[in-house]
Amino acid sequence: MTKTEQDPRLLTPGPLTTTARTKEAMLHDWGSRDQKFININKRVRERLLEIAGVSDTHECVPMQGSGTFVVEATLGTLLSRDGKTLVVINGAYGTRMTHMLDKMGRSYVTYETAENEPPNPDDIDKLLTDDDAIDFVTIVHCETTAGILNPIEAVAQVIAKHKRNLIIDSMSAFGAIPLDPAQTPYAAIVFSANKCFEGVPGLGFSIIRRDILEGAAGNAHSLSLDLHDQWKALEAGGQYRFTPPVQVICAFEQALDQFDAEGGVAGRNKRYADNCRILLDGLREMGFKTLLSDNLQAPIIVSVHMPADPKFIFKDFYDAMEKKGFVLYPGKLTIADTFRVGCIGALDENDMNAALSAMRQTLKDMGVKSGAPARV
Amino acid sequence: MTKTEQDPRLLTPGPLTTTARTKEAMLHDWGSRDQKFININKRVRERLLEIAGVSDTHECVPMQGSGTFVVEATLGTLLSRDGKTLVVINGAYGTRMTHMLDKMGRSYVTYETAENEPPNPDDIDKLLTDDDAIDFVTIVHCETTAGILNPIEAVAQVIAKHKRNLIIDSMSAFGAIPLDPAQTPYAAIVFSANKCFEGVPGLGFSIIRRDILEGAAGNAHSLSLDLHDQWKALEAGGQYRFTPPVQVICAFEQALDQFDAEGGVAGRNKRYADNCRILLDGLREMGFKTLLSDNLQAPIIVSVHMPADPKFIFKDFYDAMEKKGFVLYPGKLTIADTFRVGCIGALDENDMNAALSAMRQTLKDMGVKSGAPARV
Repeated sequence: MTKTEQDPRLLTPGPLTTTARTKEAMLHDWGSRDQKFININKRVRERLLEIAGVSDTHECVPMQGSGTFVVEATLGTLLSRDGKTLVVINGAYGTRMTHMLDKMGRSYVTYETAENEPPNPDDIDKLLTDDDAIDFVTIVHCETTAGILNPIEAVAQVIAKHKRNLIIDSMSAFGAIPLDPAQTPYAAIVFSANKCFEGVPGLGFSIIRRDILEGAAGNAHSLSLDLHDQWKALEAGGQYRFTPPVQVICAFEQALDQFDAEGGVAGRNKRYADNCRILLDGLREMGFKTLLSDNLQAPIIVSVHMPADPKFIFKDFYDAMEKKGFVLYPGKLTIADTFRVGCIGALDENDMNAALSAMRQTLKDMGVKSGAPARV
Repeated sequence: MTKTEQDPRLLTPGPLTTTARTKEAMLHDWGSRDQKFININKRVRERLLEIAGVSDTHECVPMQGSGTFVVEATLGTLLSRDGKTLVVINGAYGTRMTHMLDKMGRSYVTYETAENEPPNPDDIDKLLTDDDAIDFVTIVHCETTAGILNPIEAVAQVIAKHKRNLIIDSMSAFGAIPLDPAQTPYAAIVFSANKCFEGVPGLGFSIIRRDILEGAAGNAHSLSLDLHDQWKALEAGGQYRFTPPVQVICAFEQALDQFDAEGGVAGRNKRYADNCRILLDGLREMGFKTLLSDNLQAPIIVSVHMPADPKFIFKDFYDAMEKKGFVLYPGKLTIADTFRVGCIGALDENDMNAALSAMRQTLKDMGVKSGAPARV
């Protein structure tokens, strides 16, 4: 009946591979005013606050659309129209926040490091010391541009010291990277249903400090993307303001059950870390050079230098891998010519080993020499 | 396996009842760069232009989110920042457009009639004659607040005469109400996957005149909701700019196949008109008073006056109907105390007759007198 087992395994930053059980939750129709559906939304919001460990201080606000929609909604709702934001950038998703702020006409400054270089908390300390007008700082938790894990705790502590507010785009990290809110205080953390929680795409969440959310009425640049109004409606009647993606939401609830059954953040982190270790070891054993040193590598997605061997043509490699049932991802880096291999989604060590076998066979078929130096 | 047949039948303006086949299309994972998925998006966009009959002149731009997201995206993308819009209002969805424009800070005037009264094209003619600054006019095709079908053709002709641009919120009409673009010229028409096309919610479309879309770069107030940029990305690489709701999109393609098999707009219109006729006759035979005269009633959703009999308590009626497997909808009118019964979605005359039987039984169980006058 379900042909999920025949679908390609998605070694990408999303859309991701999800379980059959998650997708089967979508085989129903739900009225948005149905009490059972309202209860699902309520529990989902509560469970996410529990996972974050901030039930007493924060609120969880869902929003339909892609992850970018929820990041933009969070910025638009929380940043006051006359505020000033420091955007910390080391990849495409940090840069994207500046595009949002440009559209909104909100004031910002940037602090940018290379895509393979984490931001230095001391630099942020100095920037905040020098500019009292900065009231919010935004940072990407795991920048999937390179796959880097940013030093979120150290950055958060600097920002807390200066009594500024931190917004974390934790799209590809929340749920799989442990985060202690006492050590990493934040005004808001944003994530998607379709990354480490392994729901289907079309839904995201912002967990926002209650006092900041309460004070955010009227900030938003958009009706659809107003998280304050969305929160007020959910609190008042348990409903989204506008037609919710009912099937996507019910799939997310199922995905959360599986997240809990796996042991929550610790369990998910272990599987992804195992996947990543297998992938890194296997890629290097084949002669591929990976971009990041292990201390910077998030267990989410791996950037791999293109081999220098002229017989390696990425499009052919990609197509051959796809034929074998594995979807890779192109690179997005400006600093090096790379491709990417993801290790998140409903995939385990067997999938990683199968992907590595398929790569070995593909390299052999292409006549690419093992151990060839990277094209850098 | 699928329990769809046990789900309640949704007599609402959405989320709607969809077929098992449509939902089963969601039992797969898709990479967003997958050529098959890219082809699906291309064909869906082409097919919608063919259905509208505007393949030569317009472009179809999809957008994730609810219908409101796509309406806001269309306004934000097409209205220039120094333009002026005439918002034609006879219900909540017309009013909602003013809320969008307020958030965006765009200039507008309104022309409002009662919720059970269509706009008068002569009034619009006069408004446009008197105000050269108005460059866009917006109107809701079927206002589900009352269920009224607005005189879209006559309005469009007035607007064309004045060489202004018309944006039609056809959320609950497109696909089921015939519309000849030669008689009803428009700059843009907006609709959702989840109304008359019977897809699942989380996706909408805007069909926009190509020359207007081409000139709309830089207008948008939002990155996520920028239909110009979304269009450019789709044209360049066949992909959404941000993670698409892959399952929702694939369900929509399946729903389109069923739409074609039913005979397109004519077939869908006939089933909904039959549903509506059965519903109106049955409700009136039970003594209910419906709000609109038949010439104003769209075959989408019916507003029903609350009966005056004190034994009729809507919440009890709603709950009893829900227990019998039918979900009704509360009223949204300011002018009268009503509830609503929808006749769209994957429902046919058997469903309508079953719903009417359930209502008869419920009224009997409640001891409500048949033929009681309406509470007006």
